[in-house]
Amino acid sequence: MSNPIIDLRSDTVTRPTPAMLEAMFQARVGDDVYEEDPTVRALEQEAADRFGLEAGLFCPSGTMTNQIAIKAHTEPLSEVICEQTSHIYLWEVGGIAFHSGASVALLPGSRGRLTAAQVEAAIRPQNVHYPTTSLISLENTHNRGGGSCYELAEIGAIAEVAQRQRIPLHLDGARIFNALVATGQDAREYGRLFDTISVCLSKGLGAPVGSVLLGSQAFIQKTKRIRKVMGGGMRQAGYLAAAGLYALHHNVERLADDHRRARQLGTALTAQPYVAEVLPVETNLVIFRLHDTTPADGFLAQLEQHGIKASSFGPQMIRFVTHLDVDDIMITRIEAALATL
Amino acid sequence: MSNPIIDLRSDTVTRPTPAMLEAMFQARVGDDVYEEDPTVRALEQEAADRFGLEAGLFCPSGTMTNQIAIKAHTEPLSEVICEQTSHIYLWEVGGIAFHSGASVALLPGSRGRLTAAQVEAAIRPQNVHYPTTSLISLENTHNRGGGSCYELAEIGAIAEVAQRQRIPLHLDGARIFNALVATGQDAREYGRLFDTISVCLSKGLGAPVGSVLLGSQAFIQKTKRIRKVMGGGMRQAGYLAAAGLYALHHNVERLADDHRRARQLGTALTAQPYVAEVLPVETNLVIFRLHDTTPADGFLAQLEQHGIKASSFGPQMIRFVTHLDVDDIMITRIEAALATL
Amino acid sequence: MSNPIIDLRSDTVTRPTPAMLEAMFQARVGDDVYEEDPTVRALEQEAADRFGLEAGLFCPSGTMTNQIAIKAHTEPLSEVICEQTSHIYLWEVGGIAFHSGASVALLPGSRGRLTAAQVEAAIRPQNVHYPTTSLISLENTHNRGGGSCYELAEIGAIAEVAQRQRIPLHLDGARIFNALVATGQDAREYGRLFDTISVCLSKGLGAPVGSVLLGSQAFIQKTKRIRKVMGGGMRQAGYLAAAGLYALHHNVERLADDHRRARQLGTALTAQPYVAEVLPVETNLVIFRLHDTTPADGFLAQLEQHGIKASSFGPQMIRFVTHLDVDDIMITRIEAALATL
Amino acid sequence: MSNPIIDLRSDTVTRPTPAMLEAMFQARVGDDVYEEDPTVRALEQEAADRFGLEAGLFCPSGTMTNQIAIKAHTEPLSEVICEQTSHIYLWEVGGIAFHSGASVALLPGSRGRLTAAQVEAAIRPQNVHYPTTSLISLENTHNRGGGSCYELAEIGAIAEVAQRQRIPLHLDGARIFNALVATGQDAREYGRLFDTISVCLSKGLGAPVGSVLLGSQAFIQKTKRIRKVMGGGMRQAGYLAAAGLYALHHNVERLADDHRRARQLGTALTAQPYVAEVLPVETNLVIFRLHDTTPADGFLAQLEQHGIKASSFGPQMIRFVTHLDVDDIMITRIEAALATL
Repeated sequence: MSNPIIDLRSDTVTRPTPAMLEAMFQARVGDDVYEEDPTVRALEQEAADRFGLEAGLFCPSGTMTNQIAIKAHTEPLSEVICEQTSHIYLWEVGGIAFHSGASVALLPGSRGRLTAAQVEAAIRPQNVHYPTTSLISLENTHNRGGGSCYELAEIGAIAEVAQRQRIPLHLDGARIFNALVATGQDAREYGRLFDTISVCLSKGLGAPVGSVLLGSQAFIQKTKRIRKVMGGGMRQAGYLAAAGLYALHHNVERLADDHRRARQLGTALTAQPYVAEVLPVETNLVIFRLHDTTPADGFLAQLEQHGIKASSFGPQMIRFVTHLDVDDIMITRIEAALATL
Repeated sequence: MSNPIIDLRSDTVTRPTPAMLEAMFQARVGDDVYEEDPTVRALEQEAADRFGLEAGLFCPSGTMTNQIAIKAHTEPLSEVICEQTSHIYLWEVGGIAFHSGASVALLPGSRGRLTAAQVEAAIRPQNVHYPTTSLISLENTHNRGGGSCYELAEIGAIAEVAQRQRIPLHLDGARIFNALVATGQDAREYGRLFDTISVCLSKGLGAPVGSVLLGSQAFIQKTKRIRKVMGGGMRQAGYLAAAGLYALHHNVERLADDHRRARQLGTALTAQPYVAEVLPVETNLVIFRLHDTTPADGFLAQLEQHGIKASSFGPQMIRFVTHLDVDDIMITRIEAALATL
Repeated sequence: MSNPIIDLRSDTVTRPTPAMLEAMFQARVGDDVYEEDPTVRALEQEAADRFGLEAGLFCPSGTMTNQIAIKAHTEPLSEVICEQTSHIYLWEVGGIAFHSGASVALLPGSRGRLTAAQVEAAIRPQNVHYPTTSLISLENTHNRGGGSCYELAEIGAIAEVAQRQRIPLHLDGARIFNALVATGQDAREYGRLFDTISVCLSKGLGAPVGSVLLGSQAFIQKTKRIRKVMGGGMRQAGYLAAAGLYALHHNVERLADDHRRARQLGTALTAQPYVAEVLPVETNLVIFRLHDTTPADGFLAQLEQHGIKASSFGPQMIRFVTHLDVDDIMITRIEAALATL
Repeated sequence: MSNPIIDLRSDTVTRPTPAMLEAMFQARVGDDVYEEDPTVRALEQEAADRFGLEAGLFCPSGTMTNQIAIKAHTEPLSEVICEQTSHIYLWEVGGIAFHSGASVALLPGSRGRLTAAQVEAAIRPQNVHYPTTSLISLENTHNRGGGSCYELAEIGAIAEVAQRQRIPLHLDGARIFNALVATGQDAREYGRLFDTISVCLSKGLGAPVGSVLLGSQAFIQKTKRIRKVMGGGMRQAGYLAAAGLYALHHNVERLADDHRRARQLGTALTAQPYVAEVLPVETNLVIFRLHDTTPADGFLAQLEQHGIKASSFGPQMIRFVTHLDVDDIMITRIEAALATL
């Protein structure tokens, strides 16, 4: 077949466009361990400014920005409140325990979203038998919840609990720009409600490598030793940061296209007899459940014969992700393939 | 009032009887760090023999025996499967993360009891994003579940999963003798199904201090350095071990009396208008929920005016525990008090 | 042979005297996890008062009191300054790294004693590559240094550095009473210079089990959760605490006898042709080096044939320890035996 | 002044040449978390082949490759043998304790180089009080030792000890190519003697970012989860790997020029009255000590006025590093400046 492979496994698989590549290799660089890479500094500052926070820290991955934030906010013998299918708990190799020696309070969300009441009930009282609640972490959009978005009012209510109880509030914003574009919310509201935000550049934004952790000047200063010990101190990292800057300038609004295409796939899937359920499509993730009679492995194998790659997401669950490298022609091809399975 | 205080807060509050005290101070002792305390060795061996396991390790608390077992079974970047209200997760200060750097998979049990199907579904597949499942831990009787007992068949099914997947199986047996007495199960069956068992001597058995961790010779050998680093290497510990031996010899069968008294309290509570629900009473724990209109704090304060101490166990939840120092006369006093509140 | 074994391996091997046992037997106890054991509270307070500190925490071992102190003073990514042969580094199973995730700066002392200049030079400057110096820990008397004692002036100079740099100062006082008796120093001076002190009851003082950690009210409050997670929360621990109280009342001044006997052994050893060097005997430890032609294993085996047990302490190094259960008649027997080897 | 700044602070400050940038720009990339980046795979394999090892793991820094290796070789309650001024201990933020919970045995080397006898004596015997020796780590060239090189015979003797005692042997090869070029040793000998090697691409080799960890297939497989939890899982990392490949192909032999220039600086320094001592110059590092009367801060400030940057390296110690961006004309400028200070 001469058709290109359609890769729906993740929005991490995108390759830089020629214009982004051009931006990368024009970058001015320096030794960022000495804090002398101008492009890294520019990216950190611009990302911080977008969210109304003071400072940023460029890291090689979103796992690193999340785990650094958790480490900096907590101490051993404390506990992190998060959703029971959140990325920081489920897909970061148990890093909360590994790096921070911290316990987790795992709450069942509505497609990954917690309520202020749930969060408040999970805060541990003072007791010699208990760890101390040291962090509340939210994820928006929520991956396992099918790209679901929080309403700002609920985040506000959770932030109110956090501030009243003097517990910091972190956002795993791996796909925060998808949430902003889908809801029309203001990024600066997030900077007002969260103490720290992890923003990923290598998912929907299309940069090859990197995430930025945002917070106050003092907090980011504190994280530099943690990034160093984790091995995230890179030298001339400006080539990567340049791609991130390009992505911030050119690839945010276009996420609306990914969302539209994802909705189109959701509609197509709903019509198929082998699909039991499609989670509401809010952004660029489409999570659906196959009927018990349709083996997930076989389904993925058949898709692959049509040149389409997707991911298993638990028993009978499949995830499609739209992104920069999935265009309307491909969506039509996918719809056609789905109809023949 | 000349009536003695009735302390229903926990079965840990018992004081040694004169006969137990006599046994303690007749004990032959030595330096147990040099493995030269004959009474400690006798207790370790007798406890192991009871459960058909090879060896034992005497420790100052059940938290230590559990946490040592978890540390010895796991390594960082792994995960422990346990019930979401289990003692090792809820009341041991987040020790799983602190000591072992291990993550937790928290399953909702039926009054604390898991099924083999639940356990099997929680085992993490091989994936670079996941910790490795390294331990399955059960609790019997289950404290938060209201002293509920497992059926041996379910444990057998879980053990079958564990063996098939080559994952060790640990029992938090803080109140295992309550389970054995209540169900008539054979202790040696437990030694056949579990790799390691933590047995507490200072709860229903009435010894002042101590728990024993049981396992294979090789496993117990491995735990000695862990006990040492945790500060559990005691010198002439035989005085404490003697109380444990006395308890094994004299205080096991009598747990049936505690269970009968607990049932009596359960019946009395069920009759009270301010009680919304009493968990089925299977052993010596009675957990009940007050109606929303009855504040738990006020209820405990009123009980205290009758010379009765009990514990809050979550919003609107109260726990009564029967033990060596609660006799039939006291039960009658409690019944009378409950009727007047 | 009808002669009793003479055990010079450690001062931990002593067994309680009948009077100490009687005190234990009479102890009033309660559940110390609920902070209701009056004898434990009395011991903690009396030990604190002796050193002019506010509060105490009773634990099952000196390893636990040291490791709790280190954990409470430090955080991960920090560093502890201590002597390179100190007990906390050499004989506590690497607990500084295990419990606290902290690095060590290991300084060469003069028979275990550091100078203020050494300590000051070891404090890490601010740098993204460095852990932060979070604790200075001294040991007095110094075990590996042969029971050597600090002069108060040097401790004062180190404390001055610590205060100026805002770094807490901990004392591993496993044998602090030996130092006090040998030098005539005032215990309350130690409470003035150190933030925290670990005092052992089961070495020269002759109690069967236990150590007390001393510090400010706020510090000791903070340590309770750490003791809990390490498994040091004991129930009716008053039986052990009673022995500790007895020891404080009756077994301190008599340490002078142990010191006299140790000096006698030092003199005897100096006269032997197979002894290359005896460290100056300041308290109850006698550390000596055999000539290279005398194998240490063979030497210990020969001693054992005379009913004398001692410890190897490194290649060609042997340690003798005098204590409550070594009397003058035994010293004469040892001298006789040494002369025949 | 129109002269360019001469940056002798470190060989990490180099910027890619146009040819290296072109190679980066042309790189074929993929999602390396899915192991689909062909350039990363090519770099990993080529680096492994050079040293005769099976497999490689590309990481964002040498701190990460070292710390991953330490974590993968050790477990908590174990101990790493290394030189007391080694990079893994001194400049990686206490990562050995932080990531691995492991203790350190710190040996004094001859300009950073250990002997087999030293290493063997530092292996801990079996004892309940001791951590287990789990790793021996060497550094070649040795940074703090002034770029000193090991002789292969000594490494061979250490490897013999390691193999006999079944303890793995790791090489921090941040500047291993400097050692190979300076001594004419064969890289494949290193792969035969060491279990794992960390090779840095962003020091003398001149790549902007990255190190490769080398070892057996099974070992590298095991490290992937550790890299993931540390946040080193990058997506389209091939742009960075392409620079590393270019460096391996073009920038190794030219290290001889850096070494010649460093020797030239060493000679110039020896002639200055304010220099007390210059460590023998073996590779591209020149470490020297100023006379006590010359303040190091003032010296560096004066150099800076001549457009020359260098690093303080301890009290009175200064380090000069030659690299790709320091040419012969600059060396002449430095010599002239040194003569005027």
